[in-house]
Amino acid sequence: MQVYPAKQHFVKVAKNLGVSSGIIFVRGAETIIHPDSDTEYEFHQDSNFYYLSGVREPGFAAAYDIATGAAILFVHHVSADEAVWIGVPPSLEDYRRAHGFDEAHYTHDIESVLSQKKPSVIFVLPHQQVDQLGSSLTPLVDTEKLLEPLHEARVFKDEYEIAIMRRANQISGDAHVKLMKTTQLGMNEAEVRGHFVGFTLGQGCMYEAYGSIAACGRNAAILHYTKNNQQLDSQEEMILVDAGATYENYASDITRTWPIGPKFTPECRAIYQIVLDMQKQVIAACAPHKQWEDMHILSNRVAAQGLLDLGILKGDIDGIMENYVVGYFMPHGIGHLIGIDTHDVGGYPKGVQRIDKPGLRNLRSRREMLPNMVFTVEPGLYFVDDILKEAQQNPKVAQFIDFDKVAEYRKVGGVRIEDNIVITEDGNYNLTTCPREIADLEAIRSVAYQ
Amino acid sequence: MQVYPAKQHFVKVAKNLGVSSGIIFVRGAETIIHPDSDTEYEFHQDSNFYYLSGVREPGFAAAYDIATGAAILFVHHVSADEAVWIGVPPSLEDYRRAHGFDEAHYTHDIESVLSQKKPSVIFVLPHQQVDQLGSSLTPLVDTEKLLEPLHEARVFKDEYEIAIMRRANQISGDAHVKLMKTTQLGMNEAEVRGHFVGFTLGQGCMYEAYGSIAACGRNAAILHYTKNNQQLDSQEEMILVDAGATYENYASDITRTWPIGPKFTPECRAIYQIVLDMQKQVIAACAPHKQWEDMHILSNRVAAQGLLDLGILKGDIDGIMENYVVGYFMPHGIGHLIGIDTHDVGGYPKGVQRIDKPGLRNLRSRREMLPNMVFTVEPGLYFVDDILKEAQQNPKVAQFIDFDKVAEYRKVGGVRIEDNIVITEDGNYNLTTCPREIADLEAIRSVAYQ
Repeated sequence: MQVYPAKQHFVKVAKNLGVSSGIIFVRGAETIIHPDSDTEYEFHQDSNFYYLSGVREPGFAAAYDIATGAAILFVHHVSADEAVWIGVPPSLEDYRRAHGFDEAHYTHDIESVLSQKKPSVIFVLPHQQVDQLGSSLTPLVDTEKLLEPLHEARVFKDEYEIAIMRRANQISGDAHVKLMKTTQLGMNEAEVRGHFVGFTLGQGCMYEAYGSIAACGRNAAILHYTKNNQQLDSQEEMILVDAGATYENYASDITRTWPIGPKFTPECRAIYQIVLDMQKQVIAACAPHKQWEDMHILSNRVAAQGLLDLGILKGDIDGIMENYVVGYFMPHGIGHLIGIDTHDVGGYPKGVQRIDKPGLRNLRSRREMLPNMVFTVEPGLYFVDDILKEAQQNPKVAQFIDFDKVAEYRKVGGVRIEDNIVITEDGNYNLTTCPREIADLEAIRSVAYQ
Repeated sequence: MQVYPAKQHFVKVAKNLGVSSGIIFVRGAETIIHPDSDTEYEFHQDSNFYYLSGVREPGFAAAYDIATGAAILFVHHVSADEAVWIGVPPSLEDYRRAHGFDEAHYTHDIESVLSQKKPSVIFVLPHQQVDQLGSSLTPLVDTEKLLEPLHEARVFKDEYEIAIMRRANQISGDAHVKLMKTTQLGMNEAEVRGHFVGFTLGQGCMYEAYGSIAACGRNAAILHYTKNNQQLDSQEEMILVDAGATYENYASDITRTWPIGPKFTPECRAIYQIVLDMQKQVIAACAPHKQWEDMHILSNRVAAQGLLDLGILKGDIDGIMENYVVGYFMPHGIGHLIGIDTHDVGGYPKGVQRIDKPGLRNLRSRREMLPNMVFTVEPGLYFVDDILKEAQQNPKVAQFIDFDKVAEYRKVGGVRIEDNIVITEDGNYNLTTCPREIADLEAIRSVAYQ
């Protein structure tokens, strides 16, 4: 792999900032210790800092001199005593070259190094401490202007980033296939999650990109299910696995739902097929200059027709859409930007508000799709008792729902299918390659029971 | 499993505090979010709070009225909106019963509930925020007296805690055996760690108790090796795996070192045998009323004799001991208290200082062993270039070392063997059951190559 394009990212951010001088200064994360103990939280690099440095270690910083175009890395100094325990660290020059910077210094020299650049202003992130700039530079700090240009830069992925995200997807997708092959009646959800984590760590991933969900049966109707501790005890049920690993600081976010038995039951199959149709139609529609919220609405329209065909919904499809009835079966949004963060920055550009309607209000992005954005497409349908009760109490919504039919499908719990796609000049392509077709899943599942 | 003995722990702490009235108030940890993102750090409960509550969820608090003996749990309130996403929470009464408290209320009622107890003083931990006590109770706060009595209570484990620690050890030990069986030439250290994490999560563990170390060959000489990303590329080398999982909030901490090939090389075997002797002799010596630092010194004496026999050390054993020469081969301490925290609290009682001598200065505990303390016993021998250079530059130490012999053994890297033991009335017993004898390891390893 070539060098992480940290400097190119600084250039992009500076261009977005639209100024011709000044210094951009960002700090990396520090190790966090649990209170009253010496146990460290697992280290996660600050996302904005990673974007501008490619550094995964704690205690670093970086700067960019906009006028001269010099990218400057500030390295955490390791004492000789520390080196005995952690090994001999790379030199400043090693770090400079490995990360593609023009200069490298130690963090204890931040004030003196940046002072020599005689900056008129230092752009910093609003949530970052600036004590390292010292008394001479702190008065020059601007905390207002940097965040948005930096977020906007992160929204558009370059080739390097997409290659990494492809790898994150490949490993996580392989893990899903491994799970599909090994899921057995009597296993615990914890084992399913454990296998995912073990496999992806073994393939060089850093950690789960988010708390994995392994939810069998009705647990899939708990949208933020985190317990992952129940036994898979019915071949009539499915398991929903929402799990993606982080590779070289880039997230993947994949959901698959498969039968615990060798085949889908008729009810599970019917709901699964609708969700699959929702996903396929949305992915087919994703292209530059379309609005993301229209993808959400499209997914709802596909679902409305599917649920009408099953008899779960009734009446007029336009009435169903106008009353956001599908929002009671898919309370979350159709997807979100993904990158260094799983729910990546930039979903709502300045001034854009959420639409306060069922389902839509939880949509994590509203903007025009443009080339090199990476989105998750994750339609789902769920039978959540509390939400359906709400629907029942709202006559405008309840008129479109056959609650007896709902009762027949309640046991399905929920289905979600989630892929990660890259918007291109003329459409999109899919980074997620693991199977989702009913026939493919049943073929894999039948092997699991041989 | 029965109810976590939270109230009994409060009783123990109150007894240690030695007062007849006042309220003990402790807060649980909150969820931490990565800056400028919505990604949560994996939740870890505050250790002191877990000890006094048995609660694993964020946002709780607990109190104990010393005069009346009432244990009061404060539950994080889940709104109806939240419940839609995370599922219907247990009731106050469910929580009260599940955790063995006398009363349960929501955290928003902390001030009013505690006010009614008319406390004269509220004992809190120095690192905890007290805003929940409100303006009426904050003036009553004492931040000085609670920490030490609480730490001292945690030092002595009860039956419930030991049963949990036994389970943590059993699962983690089983994982080590699984790794011993599957380690193959060409694997990556990341796969070894991945298998450990995957297996232990699958068996219901919460997370790694600390950052696992999977270090092959010379990497074992990097004491805080965290990269875990190199390929196992020689059957002449060993792999050192220091990995323990946390089960129900209690840590385990196990190290095993085994040959990557089917058998130990003569050099590896020789060093391994010395470390095994160190561990066995120390464990045989662990008993009430002995001093922990004497166990460190004993381990050094066994090592001195073993290294003399190999010709790595030379001269007089008393001179070797007086000059702490073994400290240059085992720079860390012989072990530490373990419990909710891996390096558990209470290692140095008030007023006890570290001994500033090679090896000994890194000993994490100096106190009299007493029944129901749980210690790790983790002797090791390493060939760390930087430390050996230091030894060479110190004539008092260098006179006892044959550096040509050292050069022959440098490739061994390092060996550590670590078990977790419980001090009893008349000695101790070992919670760690996975194999450590050379014959057992070679038997397992030969199967791996069949």
